[in-house]
Amino acid sequence: MRPLVLTQGDPAGIGPELTLHAWHARGLLELPPFAVLGDPVLYRATARRLGLDTAIAECEPADAPAKFQSALPVVPTGQPGNAPPGRPEPRFSAGTIAAIDLAATLLRDGRAAAMVTNPIAKSVLYAAGFSHPGHTEYLAALAARLWDVEEPRPVMMIWSPGLAVVPATIHVPLRQVPDLLTVSLVVETGRIVHRDLRRRFGVDAPRIAVAGLNPHAGEGGALGLEDDAVIRPAIGTLRAEGIDARGPLPADTLFHARARAGYDAALCMYHDQALIPVKALAFDDGVNVTLGLPFVRTSPDHGTAFDIAGRGIARPDSLVAAIRLAGRLADARTAEDGG
Amino acid sequence: MRPLVLTQGDPAGIGPELTLHAWHARGLLELPPFAVLGDPVLYRATARRLGLDTAIAECEPADAPAKFQSALPVVPTGQPGNAPPGRPEPRFSAGTIAAIDLAATLLRDGRAAAMVTNPIAKSVLYAAGFSHPGHTEYLAALAARLWDVEEPRPVMMIWSPGLAVVPATIHVPLRQVPDLLTVSLVVETGRIVHRDLRRRFGVDAPRIAVAGLNPHAGEGGALGLEDDAVIRPAIGTLRAEGIDARGPLPADTLFHARARAGYDAALCMYHDQALIPVKALAFDDGVNVTLGLPFVRTSPDHGTAFDIAGRGIARPDSLVAAIRLAGRLADARTAEDGG
Repeated sequence: MRPLVLTQGDPAGIGPELTLHAWHARGLLELPPFAVLGDPVLYRATARRLGLDTAIAECEPADAPAKFQSALPVVPTGQPGNAPPGRPEPRFSAGTIAAIDLAATLLRDGRAAAMVTNPIAKSVLYAAGFSHPGHTEYLAALAARLWDVEEPRPVMMIWSPGLAVVPATIHVPLRQVPDLLTVSLVVETGRIVHRDLRRRFGVDAPRIAVAGLNPHAGEGGALGLEDDAVIRPAIGTLRAEGIDARGPLPADTLFHARARAGYDAALCMYHDQALIPVKALAFDDGVNVTLGLPFVRTSPDHGTAFDIAGRGIARPDSLVAAIRLAGRLADARTAEDGG
Repeated sequence: MRPLVLTQGDPAGIGPELTLHAWHARGLLELPPFAVLGDPVLYRATARRLGLDTAIAECEPADAPAKFQSALPVVPTGQPGNAPPGRPEPRFSAGTIAAIDLAATLLRDGRAAAMVTNPIAKSVLYAAGFSHPGHTEYLAALAARLWDVEEPRPVMMIWSPGLAVVPATIHVPLRQVPDLLTVSLVVETGRIVHRDLRRRFGVDAPRIAVAGLNPHAGEGGALGLEDDAVIRPAIGTLRAEGIDARGPLPADTLFHARARAGYDAALCMYHDQALIPVKALAFDDGVNVTLGLPFVRTSPDHGTAFDIAGRGIARPDSLVAAIRLAGRLADARTAEDGG
């Protein structure tokens, strides 16, 4: 049995304390076995600071499942990570990166089942020479290198128990969204969603609801042209490939309970269109899933939260949900991949 | 005691049957007394078609409260309205308009407490010579004429028990939204929301959460300039006037339960930003409230639904919620106006 692996994340953020809280809740929440990749000294210090009686087991990934019930398995990265909470420093960046690299390597080598990443702070990494646009882009570059494939296009899904959404564009000004939406962007995103709903989520015949861009999905052109000129042809292409994509559907009526029952994922056109409904409905249970990679990667739906790190008040709900989902996706993958 | 008045709406739509359903539920739901303004023949025919045993009382508005428990009070407009369900015809447009005109006149004369409008179909009215952009704009023009004031700027609020939202722009292509947002638009909208939360909703110190336009409210300019260049100065102006406006706030984290507890209304920048959360959370209980008018006007959050009219399957939830809210707002208004 291969464990899930959690990356350390920025050691000055809330990642270390949430990892401890998640491990302490392992029995109550029936969490799948995981190991964290990082500096064991960091976890001992964090436990002491929070008054937690946490057993730490430095070990290899293969030994983590057996040790998981009695101790938090920590696979050392060999890099120092004992940062003071709330005070990020570039000198710990090598350890932050090393954990990600190690997680990807373990996944490639079949020594881990899935990756759950704790939050990093790009600005801190940039100060230490990191040059990728973000966490996910770095994982795509790593995947290309370690799997020796063309760099995959990662697709962000926010998953919650009642709603999964995928924004086709993400961190761009709203003004740029209409011009960034192209038929090929919507088609490629739809294909990746379809493929990963099948192979990761175990959905045999995925139903994808595609949101319109404009109010009322453009109302036949009266409220904007992109719905008919871009989104509709993209849906036509997807359907011609046998993918059950539907729309463009008016976004305002796409997310109530009866509507949600009719699809497995909503493909949205921009950040807030996707994130408003999922956070309104399931704020603490939202999980980031990166589709399109050669491995399962989930992450909590929050950042490093340096402002509250070390105070013991950060909620582990989203990390717990990310661990739980990673376990579920890893199981589905194992079933399909035959190993 | 003055009754609420319901306008007939398009007689071929679902308005007549929903009005009957709402009246039949008056006891169970403890609805405030209302009269419908329209053609009594229409309501008799609709009741017969649906197999409802509905007593109809043709009467003056002043007599409606006393009759309400035993019969549906209908104040005749004098125009024919007995349209076949699902088959709208321009020849009934005069009756549709007459009901709206009568409602406004009764409100001006102090003979009604508030107006609840049933849905109309603009295309049908246009075919009969109607020249206003919509229902709400027609009410604003009527208000100017009947109250002899400058034409008010109506502001749409979607109210539900747990969330009230106001879109600053509404039925425009998303592409146009960034350029339509101006400091004065946000300021004027914020002022009207503040004023009507006080005088209509009885909120002494309204808290208005203002959503950002871009992801993460622009993230300091990295994800768009409008949040800092337009929305922030508008909020500054509102605050200088003593209005408790806050933001610009990232829209994705603005609508979960803990966030919603912190404000009385969310001022949003565009249609879907406002309507996605309220319809995700309260699809059947959303009510349209028109702020900025010299009278209380609510309406259900759906259209004429010609495709299902007459089949008895339309849900009266939103009309019932509109009636209930109109009653509440009329009471608050009466208290403040001293009459």
